[in-house]
Amino acid sequence: FRTFKDPNPSCQSRIAELVQEYPIKSCAVISHIRQANRGGVNLENTHPFTRELWGRYWTFAHNGQLTGYDALDTGRFQAVGDTDSEIAFCWLLNQVEAKYPKPPQDMAEAFAFIHQCCERLRQLGVYNMLLSDGEYVLTFCTNNLHSITRRAPFGCASLIDEDVTIDFQQETTPNDVVTVIATQPLTNNEQWHKMQPGEFNVFYFGEVVYQAQA
Amino acid sequence: FRTFKDPNPSCQSRIAELVQEYPIKSCAVISHIRQANRGGVNLENTHPFTRELWGRYWTFAHNGQLTGYDALDTGRFQAVGDTDSEIAFCWLLNQVEAKYPKPPQDMAEAFAFIHQCCERLRQLGVYNMLLSDGEYVLTFCTNNLHSITRRAPFGCASLIDEDVTIDFQQETTPNDVVTVIATQPLTNNEQWHKMQPGEFNVFYFGEVVYQAQA
Repeated sequence: FRTFKDPNPSCQSRIAELVQEYPIKSCAVISHIRQANRGGVNLENTHPFTRELWGRYWTFAHNGQLTGYDALDTGRFQAVGDTDSEIAFCWLLNQVEAKYPKPPQDMAEAFAFIHQCCERLRQLGVYNMLLSDGEYVLTFCTNNLHSITRRAPFGCASLIDEDVTIDFQQETTPNDVVTVIATQPLTNNEQWHKMQPGEFNVFYFGEVVYQAQA
Repeated sequence: FRTFKDPNPSCQSRIAELVQEYPIKSCAVISHIRQANRGGVNLENTHPFTRELWGRYWTFAHNGQLTGYDALDTGRFQAVGDTDSEIAFCWLLNQVEAKYPKPPQDMAEAFAFIHQCCERLRQLGVYNMLLSDGEYVLTFCTNNLHSITRRAPFGCASLIDEDVTIDFQQETTPNDVVTVIATQPLTNNEQWHKMQPGEFNVFYFGEVVYQAQA
């Protein structure tokens, strides 16, 4: 687990520059560009947030805005900054730990429970979530989440907002399965899956291993 | 709070390069180059380690080797890697939280308690420690820790291991107080304070605010 954070705008960020140039290979990556609605612009309020649970680092990013989040009991997971997002994350982990003080035998059961928690957060507003323990990537959609899974035979993809085309055949090996989850589709020549309100997915090395609707 | 970690040797590290070139200004910085004695060379075992307590991020680095550390009860603070250092850190935070579930009114009392905990860890081997909540920097010496406090009028310093001289008058403002704590003295034309076995210090914006001997 590693984090690269910068409270500065991404277009001026030396950290973002490093991440672009540095050939990181990772099984699970969470990236977040913040539109600061709740809480000031500073390092404490910069996503993603990380806490340890069950001897794993859990990393979290949120898109959306919540109301009434001050009433959430975060227990032993205290927020360091003052965003709705970090408080929601701390509340979620506290719920999970209360239910599963130790790593659950049956992860599917735990995923169903986390899905329920996400539904409760959705009642507070817009809650689009990415959450990972470094192996699993959990997603929850309120209104803006899209995904695409790429596997062999890999093709080319053209970015929507830049005149850039990537040939994934050059970047992958035949057994790779790569899923990208983003607020909006990033390419204009591929079919992205628009997630439904309340949809919850768990990805494991690129494959969906758990899925549930609202 | 921000961390830059690399399991690769520092001389080849792109991350170390970024930190060198990037003009970070910070009130408290902890840096660690690992000689891997306990636990494999990987990201999970790379110092510094961080956990949240009292709504603050606590960051920790250790120099030395411990034995019998598997018996330490780390409670809710589980190690993610398998170093003696991270387990000692988790044990220490668990002790502190058990004694002070909430931020203590009297920090001096808490520092005295942390000092006691460090003494217990010293019984397990070599325990040189740097610990910070982002404002306070706590140090504990078993055998190898030196410090120097620089303030106006600032002078020049020559690095021991490179032919580099820094004129701190060019790098500071008159009210700055800058303390460097390191395993060994880093400069050869200044007087470093060699910390004593069992010595515990707390620095706050460069000044010693708490000190105790074994």
